[in-house]
Order: sequence, then C-alpha cells, then structure tokens
Amino acid sequence: MPPFDQVFKRLFARVGGWAWVACIPLALIILATWGVAAHAQEELTAADVQVTLNNIWVLVCAFLVIFMNAGFAMVETGFCRQKNAVNVLTKNLIVFALATLAFWFIGFSLMFGANGNGWVGWGSFFLGGAPELYGLGPDGINLTKDTFFLFQVAFAGTAATIVSGAVAERIKFVDFLIFSVLLTAVAYPITGHWLWGGGWLAQLGFHDFAGSTIVHSVGGWAALMGAAFLGPRMGKYNADGRVNALPGHNLSIATLGCMILWLGWFGFNPGSQLAADPAAAYIAVTTNLGAAAGGVAATLVSWVMSGKPDLSMTINGILAGLVSVTAGCFVFGYAGAFFAGLIGGILVVFAVGFFDSIKIDDPVGATSVHLVCGVWGTLAVGLFANPNNFTQGGEGIAGLFYGGGLGQLGIQILGILTVGLFTVVLSTIFWLVVKSVLGLRVSAEEEMKGLDIGEHGMEAYSGFLKDTSDMTGVM
Amino acid sequence: MPPFDQVFKRLFARVGGWAWVACIPLALIILATWGVAAHAQEELTAADVQVTLNNIWVLVCAFLVIFMNAGFAMVETGFCRQKNAVNVLTKNLIVFALATLAFWFIGFSLMFGANGNGWVGWGSFFLGGAPELYGLGPDGINLTKDTFFLFQVAFAGTAATIVSGAVAERIKFVDFLIFSVLLTAVAYPITGHWLWGGGWLAQLGFHDFAGSTIVHSVGGWAALMGAAFLGPRMGKYNADGRVNALPGHNLSIATLGCMILWLGWFGFNPGSQLAADPAAAYIAVTTNLGAAAGGVAATLVSWVMSGKPDLSMTINGILAGLVSVTAGCFVFGYAGAFFAGLIGGILVVFAVGFFDSIKIDDPVGATSVHLVCGVWGTLAVGLFANPNNFTQGGEGIAGLFYGGGLGQLGIQILGILTVGLFTVVLSTIFWLVVKSVLGLRVSAEEEMKGLDIGEHGMEAYSGFLKDTSDMTGVM
Amino acid sequence: MPPFDQVFKRLFARVGGWAWVACIPLALIILATWGVAAHAQEELTAADVQVTLNNIWVLVCAFLVIFMNAGFAMVETGFCRQKNAVNVLTKNLIVFALATLAFWFIGFSLMFGANGNGWVGWGSFFLGGAPELYGLGPDGINLTKDTFFLFQVAFAGTAATIVSGAVAERIKFVDFLIFSVLLTAVAYPITGHWLWGGGWLAQLGFHDFAGSTIVHSVGGWAALMGAAFLGPRMGKYNADGRVNALPGHNLSIATLGCMILWLGWFGFNPGSQLAADPAAAYIAVTTNLGAAAGGVAATLVSWVMSGKPDLSMTINGILAGLVSVTAGCFVFGYAGAFFAGLIGGILVVFAVGFFDSIKIDDPVGATSVHLVCGVWGTLAVGLFANPNNFTQGGEGIAGLFYGGGLGQLGIQILGILTVGLFTVVLSTIFWLVVKSVLGLRVSAEEEMKGLDIGEHGMEAYSGFLKDTSDMTGVM
Repeated sequence: MPPFDQVFKRLFARVGGWAWVACIPLALIILATWGVAAHAQEELTAADVQVTLNNIWVLVCAFLVIFMNAGFAMVETGFCRQKNAVNVLTKNLIVFALATLAFWFIGFSLMFGANGNGWVGWGSFFLGGAPELYGLGPDGINLTKDTFFLFQVAFAGTAATIVSGAVAERIKFVDFLIFSVLLTAVAYPITGHWLWGGGWLAQLGFHDFAGSTIVHSVGGWAALMGAAFLGPRMGKYNADGRVNALPGHNLSIATLGCMILWLGWFGFNPGSQLAADPAAAYIAVTTNLGAAAGGVAATLVSWVMSGKPDLSMTINGILAGLVSVTAGCFVFGYAGAFFAGLIGGILVVFAVGFFDSIKIDDPVGATSVHLVCGVWGTLAVGLFANPNNFTQGGEGIAGLFYGGGLGQLGIQILGILTVGLFTVVLSTIFWLVVKSVLGLRVSAEEEMKGLDIGEHGMEAYSGFLKDTSDMTGVM
Repeated sequence: MPPFDQVFKRLFARVGGWAWVACIPLALIILATWGVAAHAQEELTAADVQVTLNNIWVLVCAFLVIFMNAGFAMVETGFCRQKNAVNVLTKNLIVFALATLAFWFIGFSLMFGANGNGWVGWGSFFLGGAPELYGLGPDGINLTKDTFFLFQVAFAGTAATIVSGAVAERIKFVDFLIFSVLLTAVAYPITGHWLWGGGWLAQLGFHDFAGSTIVHSVGGWAALMGAAFLGPRMGKYNADGRVNALPGHNLSIATLGCMILWLGWFGFNPGSQLAADPAAAYIAVTTNLGAAAGGVAATLVSWVMSGKPDLSMTINGILAGLVSVTAGCFVFGYAGAFFAGLIGGILVVFAVGFFDSIKIDDPVGATSVHLVCGVWGTLAVGLFANPNNFTQGGEGIAGLFYGGGLGQLGIQILGILTVGLFTVVLSTIFWLVVKSVLGLRVSAEEEMKGLDIGEHGMEAYSGFLKDTSDMTGVM
Repeated sequence: MPPFDQVFKRLFARVGGWAWVACIPLALIILATWGVAAHAQEELTAADVQVTLNNIWVLVCAFLVIFMNAGFAMVETGFCRQKNAVNVLTKNLIVFALATLAFWFIGFSLMFGANGNGWVGWGSFFLGGAPELYGLGPDGINLTKDTFFLFQVAFAGTAATIVSGAVAERIKFVDFLIFSVLLTAVAYPITGHWLWGGGWLAQLGFHDFAGSTIVHSVGGWAALMGAAFLGPRMGKYNADGRVNALPGHNLSIATLGCMILWLGWFGFNPGSQLAADPAAAYIAVTTNLGAAAGGVAATLVSWVMSGKPDLSMTINGILAGLVSVTAGCFVFGYAGAFFAGLIGGILVVFAVGFFDSIKIDDPVGATSVHLVCGVWGTLAVGLFANPNNFTQGGEGIAGLFYGGGLGQLGIQILGILTVGLFTVVLSTIFWLVVKSVLGLRVSAEEEMKGLDIGEHGMEAYSGFLKDTSDMTGVM
C-alpha cells in the first residue's frame, strides 16, 4: 500500500480551498492511513518472501548438484579396477575443490561478468562485483550473488568431473589437475557465456535448459580428446581387434553412485529454473521419466544383445536418460521426455560399442553418456519441444514433431557444433600443452602395478587379498 | 484488499444525495484506493507464496523418498552374499525405473483417478488429466499434479523395493521385474486408493498417516508370499531344524544404507502432511524418536539374547522403529512415538527368529521390519494416539491409552486385515502366474555359484579373492 | 492493516461534534474499512509464510546435519582396518540414536531451558515445556520447538560422533556408549549453553557462528582425552620412536564419507542462521571456499612433504577447511574464508604428525581435524572478521586484520580456553569413571584378532579373503 498516502497528498494539494467541514475528516483520514501506510512500508511483502524462497530453493538444488560429485566418484571408482581406486577417488574429490577456486577467481566472471560481449564475459573477478555486474538483480535473474555463484560453480564442477572417468587408469595425476583448472576457469565459462551469460547463442534462440550441451557435451568433448590423446589402457584392445573387458572392481558403489546422481539431477534440472515455482515439479517429473525410460531401454537392449541384463548398462542407461532430458526437461511434454530418455538409453549401448570399435578407450563410458546423449538431448529439443506442454508455450519453442518445422532444430544443431568445435579446439590445446610439458601418461610399469601405488603410494583396500594377475604384465 | 473499493462503491451508490462538500473527499478516496486495490489484485499474495512453498517442500521430500532406493539397495546388497551382489543391485536399481513407468501408465490413475469409486480410482491415465481429476485443486490437496505425482511414485517404488530383499539370492531376475510392475501398477494403487484416494477406509476413519499399512505392510505381505513360494535358500535350514547363518558380505554399505533410509524417512513421514507447516517439524521429531528408540531397543535385546551387540539388529531396529511410527507420527505424542518405536525394535528381533522357525527365509529381514512393524505401527495408532499432542486433536483421534476406547483400535485392525488379505490374495495370484509361466527359482547350480554369474554374467568385486566354499555345494 | 480501524475509532471518539454532513462519509469509511481489516486479520500474511519458510529451511538443514552421521561413519570405518569395521560402524550408527534420547531427556533442557542461569540451563525436560521455555517465540528464536530441537540434537550427535574416530580399534563398545550418553546429556549442553543458550560467553561477545569451538573442539577435546587414556593401538609406535602406518581398509567409503560431510556442512553452517534469508547463501559460499582451500592446501603440503599426493590428507584437508570456517562463516569475507580454510588445511597435516610425535594415537585424525582446526577457526574470527562483508557489520565484529584490534581476539581465546578446560575436566572424569568400573580397553588378543569378532561376533566382509598377518601378533 505504499502509494496510498502519496497519491492522497498529491490530490489534496492540487484541489485545495474546501469547506473546513470536509477538511477535518480528510485530515483525520490522512493521519490514520499515514500510520497504516508507514507501517506497511516496513512490512514484509509476499514478493519479499517469494524472493527468499527462490534463493532457498536454488540453494538446496546447488547442494544436490554438489553432491553429484559423490555420485560421479562412486560410479567412476566402481567401474575402474581396484589398483587404480585411490587415484580415481582423489581426482574426483579434489576436482570440485579446484573448480571452486578456479571459478571463483576467473570462471564466474568469464561466464557472467557484465563487462564482456556476446562471446565472453568479463570483470568483477573474485566475486567482488555488485550483483548487477553478473546479470543479477531487478532487471536480471532474481537471485543473490551467492546463491547464483554456488549453483553455477556446482555446474562447472560437473563438467570437469565428467572428464575424469574417460581418462582414468593411465593419466598422470598432476595433468588431470591442471586440465581441470583450465577447463573450469576458461573453456567451460566461455561456451557457457554464449548461452547462459546472454551471449550470441542465447540471442539466436538456442535452447538448452539445464545443459545437455553446455555442461554434459562440453565435459564429453574434453573427455573424448583426453581419451584420444592418451590412447587405450594396456590390454584393452588385442592386435586382432578383439576387445577385452577390464571389469570394474566395485559395482556396489557404482550403483550407489548412479542413485546419488539420480538424486542430484533433481537439483540440476529443476534448479535451472532459477526460481521456486510450479515448473520445478514439472521438470522433476520429466527428468524422472527420462531416467526411467533410459534405464529400462538400456537394460533391455543390452539384454537382447548379450543375452544377459548388464548392471553397468542399467547404470549408464539411467545416466543416459538423465542427460538426454537435461536440455528439454522444461519444453518436453511427458511423452517427449519419455522418448528422449528411451532413445538415449538405446544410444548409449551402441555408443559404448562404437567407441571401442574406434579404439577410444573410456573406462566408464563417460563419452557415451555425456557426449553422445548430450548431443542427442539437445537435438531432441528441436524434435520434441511441445508448445502445449505444462509451460503453455511460455518458451515459445516447438520442435519438428510438434509443428515447429526445422527452425529450432537448425539452431540446436548450430549450438551443438559451435560449442563442440570450440571445446575440441581449446581442450586439444590444453591437452597438448600439458603433454609437451609434463607428459600425459604414466609409465607402463606404473600402469600395470596400478596408479595407486605409483601416484599416491597407498592402496584403497588394505587388508584384502587381491587377484594380482593383471599387475604382472602376463594377462 | 480487493473488496475495499467494491464495498465502497456499493455503499456510495445506495446512500446518494450528499452535500457536494462531502462528495469531493469521498470521490478522491475512491480514486486513491481504487488504484491501490487494482494494484493489489495483481500482486503476489502470501497465500500464493504458501502454495509454492508447499510444492517446493513436498518436492524436496519426494527427492528424499526417491533417495531411499539407494538406502534399500545398500542394506539389501550388504546383507546378501557377494556372489549375488550384482543381482540385488540390479533389482534395486531398475525397480524404481519400472515403478515410475508403471505408476505413470496406470497406477496413479487407479489410486487417485476421480472417475472411480470407493474401491478403485479410474481415468486420466498417463498423467493426462487436469489436476482436479486426481483429487487436487482448491477443493482437494493443494499441490500441483507434478509434485503430487512425484511424491506418490516415490512411495509406490518403496513398496516394490521392500519385496526385493525377501526374495533375494534365489529368484529369477525377470520374475522380480514382472512382479514389481504388477505390484506398482495394480496391487499397491488399489489398497492405496482405499485410504489416500479417499476410498472406503478413509471414510471409515482408518488412520495411517504415512503408510505403515498402505506402504510397508503391503510390501511386506507381497514379500512374505514371495519368500514362501520360493522356499528357503540352499543351506539355510538343516534337516535337524538348526538354522545356519548366511552372513552378509558388506556391512559397511548396509550401515550406510540404514543411514540413507533414516534420512529418507524425514521426507517420507513429514512430507506426508502434503503441505509446508509446523507439523512437518513435529513429525520429524516423532519420527526421529521412533528410530532412536527402535535402534537402542533392538541392540539391547539382541545383546541380552546373544551375548553380543549385533550390528544387523541395530540396523533392523532403527528401520523397525521408523516403520512403527510411520502410521502415527502425526497423532502420537513424543512419548507415544518413543514407545511405538521401542516396541517395534523389540518385535523385530523376535520376528526374525519367528520367521526362521517357520522356515520362511528372508535374507534381509524385510518381512520382520516392514510387515510385522507395519502392522504394529498401525495398531499403535489405536493405542497411543494422543488428542492432546501437538496437533491439538485436530485429527480427532484418541487411542485406547488416551481415553479413546476401542473404537479407533477396531478400525485400525479392520484396515490391517483387509489391506493384508487383499494384498496376500493378489500377490499370490501374481506369484503363481509368474511361477507357472517362467518358473520362480534359478537352478540349484546357479544358486550355488551365485546369481551374478548365472543371471548377469558379471561379478560385483572383480579383482578381489573370495572364499568360494559356499559355491561348491560342500558347505 | 489491523490498527487502521482502531486508530480511526479513537480519533473519531476524541474529536466529536462535527457537522452531520461530514459524519456520514466517515461512518461509511469506517464501515468499509472495518470489513477489510477484519478480513485481513484472518488472512495469511507474508510474515506467516516467512516463519513457515524459516522452519522448513532449518528442518532441511537439520536433515543434512543428521546425514553427517553417515559421513562420519564412512570416513571412520574406511580409515580403520577391516577387522574393526563392524565395531566402528555400530558405534557410529547407534551414537545418534543415543544422542537423540539423551538430548531429549536432559541435554536440550541443560542447553536451552529457561529456568537456568548463565552457566547452565534448566527445566522443561523431555521437550515438555512451552516454546518460550527454550528461548523460542516472539522474543527469541523464531522457530517452532520441534524444528529447533531437531537442529540442535543433530549438532549434539556430531559432537559425540567425533569422539568415535579417535578411540577406535581398541575401546570397549559399552564404554563408548556410556561416554556418548554422558557427553550429549551433560557436557556438550553445558558449554553449549554458555554461548547458544544465551549464557556468559554470549554476553561477553564470544563469536562462534556454527560451532568450531562449541561443537568441534568439544568433540575434539573429549576425543583427545579418550585417546590419551586408552593409549596407542598395538604396533603403532615402535620402541625406537618410529611410527608404523596402520592403513585404512576402504578408501572408497572414506572418500564418500568426506563428500557426505561436505554436503552436510551446507546444513550445519547456513542452517545456524536459524532463519531463511540471503545470509544462508552467503554462508554456503564461504563454507565452500573454506572446504576447497583446505583440501587443496593439505593435498599440496602432503605432496611436498611426502613426495606423493595423499588421499587421506585430501579428505582431512577438506574437513579441516570446513571446521576452520565454521566459527566465522558469517563474519568472514570471501578472502577471509579462503585463508581460514587454507591455513586449516596446512595445520591438519602438521597436527597429524604432532600427535604421533607425542604418541597420541588417533586412527582417523579426529583431533587434528576437529580440535586443532576448531581452535584455529575460532581464533580466525578474531583475525579475519570483516565488518564490511556481506553482513555489513551487522554482527559488529572486526578482527585484528580488519581494524578490530585485539579485543575480539582476546574474547575468542577466552572462549576457547574455558570451553576446552571444562570439557577436558568433565570428560576426564567420565573416562576415569568408566575405566574404573568397566575397564577402557579390550584385551590384547581381542585387539589383535579385531573387535568385530571380539565385541560383536561377526565380520564386516564375509566371503572375502583377507590378509591376516596383523591378526597373528607377528606384525
């Protein structure tokens, strides 16, 4: 009610010259309402509480996304061999610490700093600027600087941790650390700026709600280049072209990791709305449908192909379904989310085979999950985006199958290609620099004995007897 | 303030004929307040924010309940032998994916569809109806369709995953999948409808706040029938009646699972209020007291009986305490919650012994926890419901020990028996159909070697040396 | 708008004697506004919703803090040997159940009961009092009794579980249970009352926002005394002064535990604001910066000192960083949080060496993390508290490096010393009483064979082959 007394005073001043009889009640009314209005001005409004609720909700989502680091750590460690467990664990634990510092120093400003252009953000490093210098405030995103930073740094950490799995079991520890810092400080923020920092892809209408391209495919492209430069693990591919399985050592923690990631995705996708509103629940449902469809599809396809239901494919199928609905979770209808996840779950099975066929050795299937399904999920927006879904076309996006023609699909392809090309080029430079200075790969002897002893001087499961046949070179 | 200007205009119109001196200030007031009121009508109200808060809170609770799948997976896997770990993990991972799809297709409509009757819901399949067609909206539950669906599907998944533990280590994988789909698509939703869908048990005054009967005993009865039809694991019961312990292979993850379930229950019980209000905190406290009392009681009882504190009994005691307060967490006082949990913790120790005495082999104690304590918790409402508790008798329920006589207790018994009978009959039909078509049990050789190799062609802990004495048939 | 009509009536009554022409509109206005005001009184206000939001947020934080029990359990179990895993797991699982009951019975009243004095609270045991009897309500903390209790009992449980790690692998199970009950029922609540119960330390201006001293150093001092009275594990220290590593058996779950604790700390620190407001996000960011800086620092320092990056130091460095920002997370600027965490991460590496040098054997480094960094974090408030940070000096605290002189630092030292002295004295009494009645330490034979068989009659990893060389006495 703030304007009440002001309007009143203005009118009163203009009119003037009334009979004194009428003046007294008016004066009294002004007096009385003045008090009320003054009181009201101090009072908490519903809009204030909504803003606080937005922050609290996005904060909780940020916690869930940060917890995804535990999910990635458990999936990746469980899928690798026990002789490398300490190494995989250490990488996954330290990577979010490094991402936090790198994104605080530089990354956040390159992604959201208001003194940049359509290609890169700039300014207000070290989180030192006012909120509006990161696109926040009344004319931008209605979150505090701290809420927004925490949510964004959690996403940056995700991109870095995706790389870890693909380069596991043969990369030098220090190389991974340096690459992670470069990725979260420079590469991820720049392509992130193109869309979420209001850059040129945002202006073109590219739609990637929670980051199938911006997060998952970026991590996936960087992982792919890493795996390619490193070459396959010893003993993975025979000279005659046969592929040897190098089975993971702990499927209990791998399964737990998948379930932690499933939980974390409820922060990742619904939180990307950056506000507490009913859309959060809608997005949670589409996310869950995608995960379920992906998990069931990958299980059935692998069952049909290999004769037995493969737990590692169930795990990767669920993750594939999740990545596949990440771009479109807000613009898909329920059926669109189901089919996007379903197709993602099918794709991941064939992608694992494909990468093996071109001798790209990815111990945990990170490229199959995050790159292939990240690309697919972004394309799926151009196919399945439904203007009659929950959001009532609020986003104004219609895919090919919902009367939108090829327009959105074209923009999606442009986004996939440009983000991919930039990330491939920049991560190639990073990997080559690191390789030339430090060397990428541990020695053959260290790889055989395990990186735990070689890089860290400790083992993960002291006191258990292990099968050491793969540590002898006679496999 | 919407009615202000309307009331004013009406009064003004009625009275009329005033001196012009008085008319001017009145007109001005109307003008001024009109603007304020019009502004207020567009503004966000506190009630709007409360509705959003309700949705966000129940959404967070749904996430916690979904995360209980990880808890069940870790408890069940840890309590089974390592040769069956992949099988138990796969069942627990895929079951929520299946439940999601089955409940989306059919189950949610059978439970809440408005076109049904007191016995079963109907209509608006595939989540395709308007909110009011699932009992939501101004005259029903004040949540969006998506929030409500996600919370309910999480519950449906819980009922299915309970079965997994009891039938572990000898059931064919495909049979469990089919049974889970039938349970979540058909059996659970029907008895669920009786109470939470506004069916006949709700109309009678049956009280089961968060599902001691509706969720836990339903899962427990289905598990009991499965364990009965399957028969005990090889080597569990000697011909002379002695019981052999078949110890679990990983109590670290089992303990972790218990703690994840404890966390998840803070979504399960407080979230069942379906609104963000101070009762949520009250329910969290009674839930926690029940868990603590159950855990301490089971530890002490097992300590006295066997001479040593048994970790598996501490785990099952905490879960027993949680199940025991699930029905009454809203109507118990603190003391009622404490005693309900305490008695549940004592019951579970004896229940484990009882089921062994009748040769029902339940590897993880699921029937002891979920069926026995589910029944107990529902009865406890008829004993301990305290009309002077936090809720100030808002529920109007008084148990036998709080002046309520036998009335509520009788209704509770009726609910336990009818839900139990229905679930036993239907799950018997399901199990027998599956058995006749596919056979229920893996071969003796596969059981001996472990279901991981037989059903999935992989092992959970590659690279570790195992004791294979129980894989040889010479035990 | 409640006062509107009252003010009006009062004014009207006082003035009187107006011309009837003016009276009619006034009367009508009164009538009209009366209705509006009455309506408004029934309506939900924004302040109501804010209170509910406060409760829901602090409740979610309480859940996260309770989940920290899982983190402690996994870190401690993973850092101990597999022959003692069941024992460590059981201690960590039962301790929160015991803490819940002890704090419900007594502890909460000793900490917050309004019938006490500056040294100890009193009255309203068993959570039986009205909210204002625990300092809640309009003139105190704006939370319901249940929300506040659950958050506080989670903290009490944390103090107790810290002790578990330091006394692991040789303490009798029953002794730990009794000590935990005494700690959470009596010792922790008394020093807690000094600050958070509004006692003498609060009145002096001691600042410990989330408990570097009140929770972590209290647990740490009690742990230190326990480790001292117990003496080192067999085989830890050679006669010639050399220290033998007794490596942990499962670094996968230890790493998972660290990540769960990191998650839980987002409830621990931001929740300590006891309200949902933008400060929560600020505190989450400072907490995260501290964790990241501590983890990176400890990794680098241990790398430099031992030549290899040590996973256990990364884990303890992250925890050290978290403990180090716990006191000052609200009054540090970003840089202060970074440096507090960084120094904590360096300190923890040297503290582990220091305690070994004085033959205090702490299997998991609990004293190094919680005691040393708890003290450091409390001191850091006196150094780094920045009156120009987010809180705009709302707390009125300036550290030495931000123009505050030595005043705050002196008060911080006083708090550290008095809380430490009290806890050392009281826990010494507790340990000695338990020792004299029951004996503290298991037999040498039991220690050698492992406490799992000795105390619990079971093993954690049945079916795996273990290296039993440390069970023979010939190490």
